[in-house]
Amino acid sequence: MDCCVIPLRHGGLSLVQTTDFFYPLVEDPYMMGRIACANVLSDLYAMGITECDNMLMLLSVSQKMNDKDRERVMPLIIQGFRDAAEEGGTSVTGGQTVINPWIIVGGVASVVCQPNEFIMPDGAVPGDVLVLTKPLGTQVAVNAHHWLDQTERWNKIKLVVTKEEVKEAYQEAMFSMATLNRTAAGLMHKFQAHAATDVTGFGLLGHANNLAAQQRNEVAFVIHNLPIIAKMAAISKACGNIFNLVQGTSPETSGGLLMCLPREQAAKFCSEMKSQSSGAGGQGAAGGAWIIGIVEKGNRRARIIDKPRIIEVPPRGTQAANQDNNSTSPAPSPNLS
Amino acid sequence: MDCCVIPLRHGGLSLVQTTDFFYPLVEDPYMMGRIACANVLSDLYAMGITECDNMLMLLSVSQKMNDKDRERVMPLIIQGFRDAAEEGGTSVTGGQTVINPWIIVGGVASVVCQPNEFIMPDGAVPGDVLVLTKPLGTQVAVNAHHWLDQTERWNKIKLVVTKEEVKEAYQEAMFSMATLNRTAAGLMHKFQAHAATDVTGFGLLGHANNLAAQQRNEVAFVIHNLPIIAKMAAISKACGNIFNLVQGTSPETSGGLLMCLPREQAAKFCSEMKSQSSGAGGQGAAGGAWIIGIVEKGNRRARIIDKPRIIEVPPRGTQAANQDNNSTSPAPSPNLS
Repeated sequence: MDCCVIPLRHGGLSLVQTTDFFYPLVEDPYMMGRIACANVLSDLYAMGITECDNMLMLLSVSQKMNDKDRERVMPLIIQGFRDAAEEGGTSVTGGQTVINPWIIVGGVASVVCQPNEFIMPDGAVPGDVLVLTKPLGTQVAVNAHHWLDQTERWNKIKLVVTKEEVKEAYQEAMFSMATLNRTAAGLMHKFQAHAATDVTGFGLLGHANNLAAQQRNEVAFVIHNLPIIAKMAAISKACGNIFNLVQGTSPETSGGLLMCLPREQAAKFCSEMKSQSSGAGGQGAAGGAWIIGIVEKGNRRARIIDKPRIIEVPPRGTQAANQDNNSTSPAPSPNLS
Repeated sequence: MDCCVIPLRHGGLSLVQTTDFFYPLVEDPYMMGRIACANVLSDLYAMGITECDNMLMLLSVSQKMNDKDRERVMPLIIQGFRDAAEEGGTSVTGGQTVINPWIIVGGVASVVCQPNEFIMPDGAVPGDVLVLTKPLGTQVAVNAHHWLDQTERWNKIKLVVTKEEVKEAYQEAMFSMATLNRTAAGLMHKFQAHAATDVTGFGLLGHANNLAAQQRNEVAFVIHNLPIIAKMAAISKACGNIFNLVQGTSPETSGGLLMCLPREQAAKFCSEMKSQSSGAGGQGAAGGAWIIGIVEKGNRRARIIDKPRIIEVPPRGTQAANQDNNSTSPAPSPNLS
């Protein structure tokens, strides 16, 4: 499970808690803070929990930074973290900072819930539809962006992508990672999600397998469609598939929710995600939603079909010019018809 | 405050939470785990809270260790941490491990409380007595133990201490740091403590100042007695007071509770701590208790008098032979009469 759920001594309440920390992966310290916070909260959101009673921030300041850099960078990370917490309706009221060779940013999110506030991730049934709420490819985008200044690496991918496209993909990845999965968590209740997890370090397939293994029913997850930030699949292929992106095991940071929805609810879920996203706009957007597969009877494993359909998700900066590819439309798929 | 206290949406309950992590300072990995856990729980105990609903463990595994060392050391740290959590009546049900240049061990302790379960640390009144529940000097003991193999350093202190005494002091420091402040926390309710904190990185005086600054009444803390692991004051003096031990600012790890008790309760508190300690014995002991000063009217500061009385606390291995110095007797002090 993404969280621990502790029954309390008080009237049917449970303490739900999660912790996560990691190392910087984007250059903008403010966005780094936002992403770290979104990543911690995401474990609560994966259980359909939309509230958080308290957030602790865990910070390790690098001893290798000089005082000037430290004074410039650390307050921005903290501010980004706090702003994302506020967007999640909570605040940071504790934490700990240590000195360490590396910068580390993380947190602990805690909430005390009544039983109807969370959805245990074990109720998938055959016939359910798999939905993913953020595109894949954040790791590829972050790496490709590093390679803009490394001639040898850049030469490997320049036939399939322009510098402009890499910059746009990097921006998209950064905004996507900083987007809270809170809207999706709220809609899990409205559309009766049966189970969900968030996609992070083990990649889509890794987390799909974990989720499948937890199910009460004998089910298997079959993934037909892979929504991926535009051009990232091509980059991954040009690099000899070192990222395993299309294989589903490329690590994501602060990825979307992967959820099992009743078949008749999935399209409605996707269209509501879309309307909430376009309303909010920018960083506060809800993310997207794509139907990516089905739940069938099986041995509690997940797999990706042989030639999955790649859904190229255009960076949001370019969406106005690509209405046909609108990222938040539920993808019509021959595999699901 | 040592914890954050978050009012919840549910019937007058509060979420009380704390986090702490640090670097290894003893050579025994199992004891290291116990100390780390005792250190985290201590923040709850300082508020008179004796229960903990959940503990998350935060662990950073050093990338510099080879696989063999890692497989030997890390499970011992984890076991020590878990055992101390169990002794605290809680269990470790979550956490996060990262790879990092340094080993870091820490945790997050959380509990959901009714208002009568915790004591806000702001109720000291003039006439209260200050009590400390573990001896000072852990940092000096840990350092002196390192110096056993460093001729130059050892030569500085060998006139005031024997190798055997250093080894015994190190053992005492290790057991003391691994001792939970849980018994003291429970007795805070029985003897109506007005305020408490735990003594850690800022040393006795640093934490006394923090506690004084939080008081609702205009009070000052005056410290007359310093219970110190035997010989550590002499070592500190022989080193030219680099530790600032007698000045009260030598950092402690997982130190005792410093509390303000009504004058008529303090001696009873100390004698009950003593009887619970001698009953339990060994690592499970409750710690000791010493009257170290008084609360008077003042400007919310703490100070140590000019020539404080040093109470030499014998290592527990030697206590049988030193009944006259019994560490858990309330110290009769001319300053308090």
